[in-house]
Amino acid sequence: MTTSANEAQANEVVNHMMKHDLFSQWLGIEIIEIKPGYSKIKMTVRPEMINGFGIVHGGIAFSLADSAFAFACNNRNIVSVALDTSINFIKPVHVGDCLVAEATEIHNGKSTGLYHINISNQHQHTVAIFKGTCFRTQKKLVHDLSVQG
Amino acid sequence: MTTSANEAQANEVVNHMMKHDLFSQWLGIEIIEIKPGYSKIKMTVRPEMINGFGIVHGGIAFSLADSAFAFACNNRNIVSVALDTSINFIKPVHVGDCLVAEATEIHNGKSTGLYHINISNQHQHTVAIFKGTCFRTQKKLVHDLSVQG
Amino acid sequence: MTTSANEAQANEVVNHMMKHDLFSQWLGIEIIEIKPGYSKIKMTVRPEMINGFGIVHGGIAFSLADSAFAFACNNRNIVSVALDTSINFIKPVHVGDCLVAEATEIHNGKSTGLYHINISNQHQHTVAIFKGTCFRTQKKLVHDLSVQG
Amino acid sequence: MTTSANEAQANEVVNHMMKHDLFSQWLGIEIIEIKPGYSKIKMTVRPEMINGFGIVHGGIAFSLADSAFAFACNNRNIVSVALDTSINFIKPVHVGDCLVAEATEIHNGKSTGLYHINISNQHQHTVAIFKGTCFRTQKKLVHDLSVQG
Repeated sequence: MTTSANEAQANEVVNHMMKHDLFSQWLGIEIIEIKPGYSKIKMTVRPEMINGFGIVHGGIAFSLADSAFAFACNNRNIVSVALDTSINFIKPVHVGDCLVAEATEIHNGKSTGLYHINISNQHQHTVAIFKGTCFRTQKKLVHDLSVQG
Repeated sequence: MTTSANEAQANEVVNHMMKHDLFSQWLGIEIIEIKPGYSKIKMTVRPEMINGFGIVHGGIAFSLADSAFAFACNNRNIVSVALDTSINFIKPVHVGDCLVAEATEIHNGKSTGLYHINISNQHQHTVAIFKGTCFRTQKKLVHDLSVQG
Repeated sequence: MTTSANEAQANEVVNHMMKHDLFSQWLGIEIIEIKPGYSKIKMTVRPEMINGFGIVHGGIAFSLADSAFAFACNNRNIVSVALDTSINFIKPVHVGDCLVAEATEIHNGKSTGLYHINISNQHQHTVAIFKGTCFRTQKKLVHDLSVQG
Repeated sequence: MTTSANEAQANEVVNHMMKHDLFSQWLGIEIIEIKPGYSKIKMTVRPEMINGFGIVHGGIAFSLADSAFAFACNNRNIVSVALDTSINFIKPVHVGDCLVAEATEIHNGKSTGLYHINISNQHQHTVAIFKGTCFRTQKKLVHDLSVQG
């Protein structure tokens, strides 16, 4: 495929995923940019997302990063499943913060992949760092654009 | 403190946390058992918690485990903050599943702590394994029961 | 295969690995017990294994655990490669300590596996906790005992 | 301290550590560059470092990265101890390979720190990725240059 066909396919895959991803919708996730093996997404934190200390629950930053990971590691139209993920919490997140998660591909193997996701706030401060290892199945997510003619 | 005073304090701390933890409330988390350095909690998965593949979003199992981690590592009434957490996904989770997260203390240090959280479904199958490292501040969460007289 | 044939194969695989594993030999690793998906091994720490603080280098406990991981995850005679491993350091290790690493199987999947390894000293104190995720190839390590007749 | 005083101190701390670090010496580690919160080191892999598959033992890449981590996180002359570290193995390492580990600081907190270490071979291919979280004590490693006058 050409670069633009690859990018078109990556966007089509993520649009398909996002349409069915009810939890990412609940989070309020919006797509900023999708490229093969890459994603950049954002969300704004709401009051119902806080934990028992009045700051944002760790599960929110994780969930945003996990969506960015899924959008990056699946978007070559090869279904990939998360095996092992980790997140380091660096700064507290507050209600009203706008979080951006940017996923970059460290390794794109035949059977596995490795991604780093940086989560930053509206002040461009990194609030958390996520690492994800995935296993690649041989299944496709959407019909294959490259054989469409 | 006596064992029963320690257990009473652990429960008081978690009740205090849970009352303010709006995201754990949204998840539908219920407390099963709290002991010093230990927690067992549950939730039932709802349709709005799925991802783009129609199975439950990884952020849901993480969030449940992260709440169990927080309830275990803070319940000696010492505010503890998550530093590094990881989760391995073992089996898919489906809408309607009842998930139980059980947190056990691997290390209770003066400045740091380490916890394992097992997440299982209603068939007693482990669906995910969570590991959490926390840093202990010197702050208390609630008034100190042991000095109440 | 019968249980005893499985155990015989597990031991044969590990003996084969250990014979070629020059670094485990340098570490002074000895096998205590091997079962399918399980290993228990030990070593004694020598002066040349210390770090710049005069305690034992983190790489030593990691290496011992990584060998235990390899001996557990490969011993069903399916070549498995480490993808993502982590280790938490809990107590310092000193020259002369006898370390035991015990690997238990959390998940034995067709394509991947997950193992926990506990590293303890001669006082039965846990000094480190290791977690390993592996990818399973379809290759065998040694000839297949089960078809020998 | 001025930038050059900071750099001088960082180098003095690492020289002090390296002089006592017998395992890093056994590995054949050489310092390439040290700056505050940063280190770049190298080593050449020898035959006694292989595992049971004839490739280099995972503990070797880990140990190199762990030394780079220690040299980066301690070199502001504040003793810091490793809490949680993880390593992803991306490509096999072979005898004779020259490995370079470069540690960069993601977070330099008062009580904790977070570092990424990239391990690459002589072909500039990344062979492994290491992540390290440390806890900072209040102790100094060497006498304080800044108060020397």
